[in-house]
Amino acid sequence: MPRPVDARDKQLIEAPCREVLLGAISPMDDAARERARSTFDSNELAAFLHDGEDKLQRREELVKLLSSQPWGDKTHRYFLTREQEYVGGLKAMVGMWQQMRQGRLSLEDGIAMRSLAYFPGGLELHIGMFIPTLLSQGTPEQQAKWLPMSNRLQIIGTYAQTELGHGTFVRGLQTVAVYDEASREFVVHTPSLEAHKWWPGGLGKTATHVILMARLFAQGRDYGPHAFVVQIRDMATHLPLPGITVGDIGPKMGFNSVDNGYLAFDHVRIPRDAMLMRFSQVTEEGRYVPPPPDNQKASYATMVYVRATIVRDSGDFLSRAVTIATRYTAVRRQTASKLGEPELQARQLPPLLLPACWPVLDYDNVQQTLLPLLARAYSLVFMGRSMMDMYNSFDAARSRGDFGVLPELHALSSGLKALCTDITAAGIEACRRQCGGHGYMLASGLPTLFNSYVQNCTWEGDNSVMYLQAARYLVKNVLAAQAGKPITGSAKYLSSAAQQADAKCGVSTADDWRSPAHQLAALTRVAAQLAAQATQVLARAGGGRVAFDGEPWNNSTVDLIRAARAHVALYLHQNFVDCVEAAASQRALGAAASGVLRELMQLHGVVLLLEASSDLLEGGYCSGRQAGMLREQQRALVRSLRPNAISLADSFAYPDYQLNSALGRKDGNVYQALLDSARISPLNATHEGPAWKEVLEPLLSPAVRSRL
Amino acid sequence: MPRPVDARDKQLIEAPCREVLLGAISPMDDAARERARSTFDSNELAAFLHDGEDKLQRREELVKLLSSQPWGDKTHRYFLTREQEYVGGLKAMVGMWQQMRQGRLSLEDGIAMRSLAYFPGGLELHIGMFIPTLLSQGTPEQQAKWLPMSNRLQIIGTYAQTELGHGTFVRGLQTVAVYDEASREFVVHTPSLEAHKWWPGGLGKTATHVILMARLFAQGRDYGPHAFVVQIRDMATHLPLPGITVGDIGPKMGFNSVDNGYLAFDHVRIPRDAMLMRFSQVTEEGRYVPPPPDNQKASYATMVYVRATIVRDSGDFLSRAVTIATRYTAVRRQTASKLGEPELQARQLPPLLLPACWPVLDYDNVQQTLLPLLARAYSLVFMGRSMMDMYNSFDAARSRGDFGVLPELHALSSGLKALCTDITAAGIEACRRQCGGHGYMLASGLPTLFNSYVQNCTWEGDNSVMYLQAARYLVKNVLAAQAGKPITGSAKYLSSAAQQADAKCGVSTADDWRSPAHQLAALTRVAAQLAAQATQVLARAGGGRVAFDGEPWNNSTVDLIRAARAHVALYLHQNFVDCVEAAASQRALGAAASGVLRELMQLHGVVLLLEASSDLLEGGYCSGRQAGMLREQQRALVRSLRPNAISLADSFAYPDYQLNSALGRKDGNVYQALLDSARISPLNATHEGPAWKEVLEPLLSPAVRSRL
Repeated sequence: MPRPVDARDKQLIEAPCREVLLGAISPMDDAARERARSTFDSNELAAFLHDGEDKLQRREELVKLLSSQPWGDKTHRYFLTREQEYVGGLKAMVGMWQQMRQGRLSLEDGIAMRSLAYFPGGLELHIGMFIPTLLSQGTPEQQAKWLPMSNRLQIIGTYAQTELGHGTFVRGLQTVAVYDEASREFVVHTPSLEAHKWWPGGLGKTATHVILMARLFAQGRDYGPHAFVVQIRDMATHLPLPGITVGDIGPKMGFNSVDNGYLAFDHVRIPRDAMLMRFSQVTEEGRYVPPPPDNQKASYATMVYVRATIVRDSGDFLSRAVTIATRYTAVRRQTASKLGEPELQARQLPPLLLPACWPVLDYDNVQQTLLPLLARAYSLVFMGRSMMDMYNSFDAARSRGDFGVLPELHALSSGLKALCTDITAAGIEACRRQCGGHGYMLASGLPTLFNSYVQNCTWEGDNSVMYLQAARYLVKNVLAAQAGKPITGSAKYLSSAAQQADAKCGVSTADDWRSPAHQLAALTRVAAQLAAQATQVLARAGGGRVAFDGEPWNNSTVDLIRAARAHVALYLHQNFVDCVEAAASQRALGAAASGVLRELMQLHGVVLLLEASSDLLEGGYCSGRQAGMLREQQRALVRSLRPNAISLADSFAYPDYQLNSALGRKDGNVYQALLDSARISPLNATHEGPAWKEVLEPLLSPAVRSRL
Repeated sequence: MPRPVDARDKQLIEAPCREVLLGAISPMDDAARERARSTFDSNELAAFLHDGEDKLQRREELVKLLSSQPWGDKTHRYFLTREQEYVGGLKAMVGMWQQMRQGRLSLEDGIAMRSLAYFPGGLELHIGMFIPTLLSQGTPEQQAKWLPMSNRLQIIGTYAQTELGHGTFVRGLQTVAVYDEASREFVVHTPSLEAHKWWPGGLGKTATHVILMARLFAQGRDYGPHAFVVQIRDMATHLPLPGITVGDIGPKMGFNSVDNGYLAFDHVRIPRDAMLMRFSQVTEEGRYVPPPPDNQKASYATMVYVRATIVRDSGDFLSRAVTIATRYTAVRRQTASKLGEPELQARQLPPLLLPACWPVLDYDNVQQTLLPLLARAYSLVFMGRSMMDMYNSFDAARSRGDFGVLPELHALSSGLKALCTDITAAGIEACRRQCGGHGYMLASGLPTLFNSYVQNCTWEGDNSVMYLQAARYLVKNVLAAQAGKPITGSAKYLSSAAQQADAKCGVSTADDWRSPAHQLAALTRVAAQLAAQATQVLARAGGGRVAFDGEPWNNSTVDLIRAARAHVALYLHQNFVDCVEAAASQRALGAAASGVLRELMQLHGVVLLLEASSDLLEGGYCSGRQAGMLREQQRALVRSLRPNAISLADSFAYPDYQLNSALGRKDGNVYQALLDSARISPLNATHEGPAWKEVLEPLLSPAVRSRL
């Protein structure tokens, strides 16, 4: 509370205040100074990354649109209760959906808005799974019946597959749908606690319908999981229908605006045509008609698509975190007291002897953390684009009935899903810690980013399972190569692995490690070496025979995962190199920007090689001296890239609205932003706070009385 | 909603349900089976870890006491709003404090209850900093004035040092306290935005008083930060006093039951005796009397104590997480579909051909994640006890005026604070991921554990700064050793480092890596090698001269941190070895338990060596073959320890009440616990949910009408 201050007080503290503020630098000035150091134009790189300035322009317009909507305003986003988050996320999704349906916005706009608003809601699976499944597995009649109402949000659906006790293992699903020839209906039932459906987004409080994956029984036979459309709530009252138990599963580490739910059936009858019958059918008499073999591959393709989108999003999330951390560490001035001495001793030193106060980004350990993360973010962004391109060209081929690339695409998308989400989850947390204590505040934007992202490591196939998918493909290729069969695609290098086994690293100076050729040769060697190692371990576990499941496989997963990681890491770097080469050959960027991008790519390779150095050394490919040069080169590249750190972050072109981070503000006015966000915290709604009457006053009043 | 089910339905689904439940195993049976496999008595090890069965007994009594208190009930802990968390945490702390003040409980009981209830509140710094600072820095008169009311909670204090723009760098504090000879008062003022006090726990809405760290100015001179007792709120109304701006800083990643606050002063006058004058004084005329030199060391000692307690707590938190993950993975049966094939293809296989369904703890990658974490948790628990013993013996010596061990204790406590918190933060998240998707639910207990723990990596000195404190001590010893001076204590190995530089690893079989002698020799070699390397880098950066701050130091922090890590890692393992040897020689444990403990210690060494393998190889100490044997030995030790995994977790003896985890329940009834916790989620208070009237009904009603 402000008050009149008399002149004597003012005058008394004037000189001391001048003294303590001596040499204080405003974070805005630091931000400006940082940008002035840059050697390239971040707008040029931003336009390149976003396919043109018009796209960036469009994003600005969408930000205006969103922030003008009540459901798009982020001012209070970090203060919401679970209930407020749920309602708010639903409003935001409905708002965006209606904007699109009303034709004001393209699908591309919608996707952009979703990422800008970053407020997932109860419609996620309605849009992402319910409608697509109707389109892919519904008969024309079923689509005609359900799609129009779905598109108008007159029914809201979700996708109910996972059960409390059954995740990855879909064959283990216990929910049954038993065909009753007499009534020509299915009876759906949940036979056990573990069979409760669990996790479907939007199921808890929002969905009126589900696509239910249940074990189909007809004429006494089990035909395994099939899809059924089941109404679960009364359309007029939203109450669960008879025989249905449904609810929200409770709060999670993040994503609490989505009402993930549970669901159980007690002998619920549904009509025969509730089964999605495009590919497999049950006739009125109860005869099962199996799906055509290609349907098999189609279900594959869906998984590949989802994993590809996770790969695409990983770069998006890591680049947000690294933008925040780079901007804040560039303006955060922090000098440790004379190192190793207790902070308080400082008082002995007269102020004029203070050591220079640096932005923390100038400390060796901070820049050697953040610049590698910038390199990784760029690498993931490029990988995400290539992954989607791969999927789309597969999709085109597939429409011609060509499923040839599917096995490799499935292995790559699985392995990359795991590697990219591991890198991003760890990277976000590393960025948060580089922001010191303030990174712990929600207002920094980083805790929410981490807590909402980290599910990607266990969701849609746990990462260990994903690596093992890639490992299986890899081991098959190792065996094929050993049998002298020709290897194509991403594992091609295995064909020559045997001959290369005693090759040595050709690096003789630290600068040699900048060369993509040297980098890729070393990463290839590690991948081949670990693939061979894993195959040996697997064969040993199988008593000389290579088995792809059961005890031998389960006892070898550590080596298999290591091999898969090395394989996709090589692929990830190769892709970065290819993208940079392509940009250069197409003159897509000016000399300055493409030079910086090349250095970033070189740093990316060095970072991956440092992670692999024990394998490089153990296999005898590198000498200790050569391995040491990797560290030397990392330092050199980081030093050389340091002046461009902030422009590399700016090139991701995240509007302040999207980052919603007090520390990640482009203008550097971070401390004002923190204070502003604190002022509106609900706990500050009253000066006394929510505990005064009930808890504090009874305790403190004796002290008051004692003073009377 | 249940309903009558007719007999035909029942009969129709009977056979299918029997078929899908074929071979289903209850998690409780799994939990029992796991315990039956154990080769030692977890009660024996638990009693050893907790200093006797009476202590364990006492904990059970405290659990009964806590769960019988309204403020101790945890049923709804994961559903609280920020306001509810704040009030609840405060009530819990007040409740525990009153129990103790009323003499029903010892201090030891209080500490135990704090950990059992695990609900920090607005009194944290009143008890942890305000009262201790009054005791250590207040004059007898000041203590007589403030302590009795503090102990009766008739005033509540906190400790306000950190400012929005000034954390580690205490000399940079800008809040001023200027002495006014005329009125014999201090004028306290906040001269800038960055000078706002920020972070003090309990400041936001609870504290009536603060111990304020402000730059003392007297007779125009700056004497640096000093401590003042300042009342900030009116005792009768709890409103901020004139000239005071105070509030909560807003929500954080965790710890939201604590009201961390901000604080600013506008020319606030406080009496001269508000300055804590035990060591330094300002006379009525405004003459500054400096503190005695030893006061210096005393302030050191306080920091050492706080870091020691963080080291102690790290093992506590990691062991909670690993208990939850070990128990859940032991009962979680999950079979991936035939690896590498899309899950849906499974439908092709008849049920009887299902591969055996294993508890995930039987998968190589899961057990090779969790058993090393069990080893680390034990190592941290032993380190924490030794750390506190070290501090206490220092404290005894200090009371005799002997500060001899302080420099080493300061370096060790700093380095270990960083290493132990890094290990624990990463370990908790690794445990969470081993629980698959369910680990993402708050009901698992793991997200809250991670989010509330991870601040320890940036709090009380950012870990990078902590490592650098240890590095400084290390480099000084390297220089001393090079100058032929005798080295004692934890860095003793440096004295012989030069001679050892070309020694080679003596391991010839994988089993050799079990020997503590081989393990410690290798870890010592790495520590010496990295210390020498860092010193070289530092000297090169200083143009041949070793400087301990400024540009050369700041440009070398990556190598300095690596060296510090290796030094404390060696110390950590040496301590584990010493504790196991001591337990054996004192026959503190039976043969079975101490054998298992020894294997766990061996695994711990192997884990640390695998992390260091690139250094072992780069330095030429190990051959590739010897490095490969480390992986072989890790697998062997993990396999051998596997049957005791659950008993090793049980030996930490965490009551279900303390873990508050649906997945970590000792009885294994995890799925029932998840469902029970979901049912009471506030979002399930109504069937329609909070969005029905406002958002959903308007959307869905057209569908209803269309059916009329």
